[in-house]
Amino acid sequence: MNEEQLHTMRHSLAHITAAAVKRLWPEAKFGVGPVVENGFYYDIDLGEEKISEQNFGKIEKAMRRIISEGQEFEHFTMPIDEAIEWARANGQPYKEELLNDLKRSGTTVAKDLDADEMGTIADGDAALDEVGFYKNGDFVDLCRGPHVDKTSSVGAFKLMRIAGAYWRGKEDNAQMQRLYGVAFAMQDELDEHLERLEQARLRDHRKLGKELDLYTMSPLVGAGLPMFTPRGTVIRDKLAQYSNQLREAHGFTKVWTPNITKTALYETSGHWAKFGDELFLVTSQETDDEMALKPMNCPHHTQIYASKPRSYRDMPVRFLETTTDYRDEKTGELGGLNRVRSLTQDDSHVFCRQDQIEAEIHGLLASVREMYETVGMKLRVRLSYRDDSDGYLGDPELWTAAQEQLKNAVIANELEYFEEEGEAAFYGPKIDFMATDAIGREHQLATAQLDFVQPERFGLEYTAEDSSKQQPVMIHCALLGSIERFMSVFIEHTAGWFPLWVAPEQVRILTINDTVLEYVEEIEATLRETVLMQPIKYNEVRFARDDRNESLGKKIREATAMKVPVQLIVGPKDQEAREVSVRTQESETKVALSELGEFLKGL
Amino acid sequence: MNEEQLHTMRHSLAHITAAAVKRLWPEAKFGVGPVVENGFYYDIDLGEEKISEQNFGKIEKAMRRIISEGQEFEHFTMPIDEAIEWARANGQPYKEELLNDLKRSGTTVAKDLDADEMGTIADGDAALDEVGFYKNGDFVDLCRGPHVDKTSSVGAFKLMRIAGAYWRGKEDNAQMQRLYGVAFAMQDELDEHLERLEQARLRDHRKLGKELDLYTMSPLVGAGLPMFTPRGTVIRDKLAQYSNQLREAHGFTKVWTPNITKTALYETSGHWAKFGDELFLVTSQETDDEMALKPMNCPHHTQIYASKPRSYRDMPVRFLETTTDYRDEKTGELGGLNRVRSLTQDDSHVFCRQDQIEAEIHGLLASVREMYETVGMKLRVRLSYRDDSDGYLGDPELWTAAQEQLKNAVIANELEYFEEEGEAAFYGPKIDFMATDAIGREHQLATAQLDFVQPERFGLEYTAEDSSKQQPVMIHCALLGSIERFMSVFIEHTAGWFPLWVAPEQVRILTINDTVLEYVEEIEATLRETVLMQPIKYNEVRFARDDRNESLGKKIREATAMKVPVQLIVGPKDQEAREVSVRTQESETKVALSELGEFLKGL
Repeated sequence: MNEEQLHTMRHSLAHITAAAVKRLWPEAKFGVGPVVENGFYYDIDLGEEKISEQNFGKIEKAMRRIISEGQEFEHFTMPIDEAIEWARANGQPYKEELLNDLKRSGTTVAKDLDADEMGTIADGDAALDEVGFYKNGDFVDLCRGPHVDKTSSVGAFKLMRIAGAYWRGKEDNAQMQRLYGVAFAMQDELDEHLERLEQARLRDHRKLGKELDLYTMSPLVGAGLPMFTPRGTVIRDKLAQYSNQLREAHGFTKVWTPNITKTALYETSGHWAKFGDELFLVTSQETDDEMALKPMNCPHHTQIYASKPRSYRDMPVRFLETTTDYRDEKTGELGGLNRVRSLTQDDSHVFCRQDQIEAEIHGLLASVREMYETVGMKLRVRLSYRDDSDGYLGDPELWTAAQEQLKNAVIANELEYFEEEGEAAFYGPKIDFMATDAIGREHQLATAQLDFVQPERFGLEYTAEDSSKQQPVMIHCALLGSIERFMSVFIEHTAGWFPLWVAPEQVRILTINDTVLEYVEEIEATLRETVLMQPIKYNEVRFARDDRNESLGKKIREATAMKVPVQLIVGPKDQEAREVSVRTQESETKVALSELGEFLKGL
Repeated sequence: MNEEQLHTMRHSLAHITAAAVKRLWPEAKFGVGPVVENGFYYDIDLGEEKISEQNFGKIEKAMRRIISEGQEFEHFTMPIDEAIEWARANGQPYKEELLNDLKRSGTTVAKDLDADEMGTIADGDAALDEVGFYKNGDFVDLCRGPHVDKTSSVGAFKLMRIAGAYWRGKEDNAQMQRLYGVAFAMQDELDEHLERLEQARLRDHRKLGKELDLYTMSPLVGAGLPMFTPRGTVIRDKLAQYSNQLREAHGFTKVWTPNITKTALYETSGHWAKFGDELFLVTSQETDDEMALKPMNCPHHTQIYASKPRSYRDMPVRFLETTTDYRDEKTGELGGLNRVRSLTQDDSHVFCRQDQIEAEIHGLLASVREMYETVGMKLRVRLSYRDDSDGYLGDPELWTAAQEQLKNAVIANELEYFEEEGEAAFYGPKIDFMATDAIGREHQLATAQLDFVQPERFGLEYTAEDSSKQQPVMIHCALLGSIERFMSVFIEHTAGWFPLWVAPEQVRILTINDTVLEYVEEIEATLRETVLMQPIKYNEVRFARDDRNESLGKKIREATAMKVPVQLIVGPKDQEAREVSVRTQESETKVALSELGEFLKGL
């Protein structure tokens, strides 16, 4: 079944849902019923009565009956005035309003509805004299179609949830109920989807963030401004440390810039004209300085580049900075760590000669590949090129050569890729990295972008071998992107079972009774001497001890609830044998104390 | 000579300076001539003519003649109208203006002049009918005194500089010349002072910051917002890393908070009422949120403490965060790294029970002591207590007990200390740390403060053993204070010769010719394997290679100008003997390649 067929099927299921509701509640009034990702919904008004999840069973039963009846979907048209009369006669005031709007202006009626909702009544360019209807059994709905041939030709479906929705999205309008369903061609596809949803629910990083004590929000501090607890800060720091380590191996050096700047910096860079109204503005009460919180770091880094003369011998100059940017997102758009106002980037900028682009991209791709291999996410890349339009800045020949260099580096790194024209930024071509998580969702996290424009606007230069002044090319690249957003994906990808190198508490010692406390101190001394070297270097073991007077079962349950990857169970027999029982997610085994360090290094 | 005698002597030297200037330029008009730190100045108006540093020799010669003449300082008084007539007759319009103002109002005259300047004419409460004068030789000046008995009773002096100064500091007034001198009782004190000034000039961190490529400023980014180059960033990071390491050894864990907050946080903490007009305000263009850049981190940290229930068993809770705060300093007050608008604090907060204060302070003091021993700065501490006034919040008994605990911890740490009543913050007693640098200047950098107020205002609590809810005490402490300010002191303290663990480039390999390049790679491999462990752990060797086709002399000069602490000189003979010539500031010695790692660890 192709996408178009799937869409048609889901749309037919929206009608079947409404037909079923009308069988159960004949007075039901209907709004719109479009197709959405993975399924459909229908907006319903039952007056005083309300549909609840308890009703899903009987609605689904009615739907299955309609399906088993194999009703044909019949298309017919009606003059618009007749249609309005039909809506009134049938007690459908929402349809009547839509038809009246449609009559007034075929193009404005749907301005407040999305494309799919429009689809339920008329094409944008439909003739206004006649309106389309579909009928199945005794259910009639005005509709553009298309539909499947008969009700029995739909696949597997499930009603998912019921939510409040204002008619046409306006708070002043009546509140209806929006009944959502999902639908797939085959039952196993539906099962897989439901399993994925259940997995996603269990893995929800907002839920795990609280359970595992990773971050917190405060209404006093504000929406979209998470604060990280000791456990969450370990994860942030270890991810950033690894990201830095990968690039330091390729010659990057850290720099530091403040979180604010005079807006003059963005007037020069060109960001002010483009994004000035999306910035957090900063007001000095002591001076007249007009300032802003930085939403990105490239303009600051150009100023460090420009702080001294550069020669062709110094190139490439590679700056690295893990720093927090601020973006003025609307409060309603904020959720957990996925979309925040304070986003910390593991940002980097290369300033290089044109002949160095390929080698630099090659090094960055190697870092990105290693990062995503380490976190266990499959990667594919999109090569985003310019098209023939004239919205791009910079010499077209430079573009052509640079796009070629990007592609060569991607191929040399054996990355799965696809190419898209017209997807480049106006200032240069780019590579977008798409990572697939453990439950099959794809996330765009890292990017590498060429930039021919900022070097020009800031007048950056280096002295070439022939003593001429030349302009460098900039390459922007982040491996994680926003650490907060990466964490939201990583928490869900791992379901909170973080790999050892990043786990906030790597090891917990659980005592069976208090005769072993001296032995526990020996174990702790061993842990203190152990330093893990992979994938980040000099990672000291983070451990804690649970020697409370509680049952071992309770201690194990609590350590497992906190997803501590290595649990060392220590009882008198272990003490005698100078070993420990090591519980991991995979296995439970005895390890000699003298071997414990090596054992941990091997995990 | 006590401070008062020194003050008198310096004031007499101001008169002698003016007398000498009047001998050389009889038409000179005089403003005021007060005592300042280490010396004095006199404001002079020569009309078209200008005093330059070239004139200092002849002015000092004239001063020495006046001194050798042993003129007596004679005091006399004059009715104020007579004094005004005297000023007019003697062509002293500035004195005339002062006297007229003095006549109008003895108390307002000096409002725009500081206390010392006032001193030159009258006490605040002097009788206005009579004005005091002093006369030495033929030089007469209106003056409150006192003076030394005769001109020969002054110590060692030197004229230092001449600068423009508006009469009474107002831009609309006439521009005069301010002639500065320094003076001490003994010649060797003066010499020492001059030597210290010269040292300070050579060590000026703004000068060294540029020469050693540590940080840069950009007018596009704004005043007081330094950006750190790769070299400067190493220093920042290593200092912070050490500071964190010291406290992590005492159980502190890192947290992370954003740089902004809703102002509601500061309304609750009480900072808004006290400091609201000193904050950078942040405007959201997408929402109505009223926000600010954080000038300190304690309110944010209380929100992490409050994010989950705490029991007496969890206490103390110790948070650590190296994060950047913003303070809206006036542009004119900004200079180098000493006073900045973006200040990064190595901040920490303990939340503890009252009975834990002493142990916690003890741990913090041990960290501070180790920090300042390592950087080679002598430390003394001020114990700042409350006095009997009622400006202090919190239970007086709690104060008394807490002050006792602070003192015990200071004594246990064998720190030199002194006590001052009335120096506490309103929210709790504190310890201020004063560190003396290599040229004898004392800087207040770190502090440790108790806080009884924020736990109250934020309603923080923990469950005590008896299940009652109790309020924790907060302890604020930073070891470095502001990293930027600490760096300004540290650069001048070390004159840019940073200790090995913090040096941006620890080792530079200087080749004698290019026959040794393969051997240099072996040396580099050895350096890559070397990890320094003191005082910070896992400090990999930061090295570079100078294999340019230049003379060894030039290479050494350049490495020394960049203050690279370890220079490895490699020639064919070294290669043959499998050794290197190691140049440090202290010595030059041959070291076998096989011993190089251990040698570096021993530095």
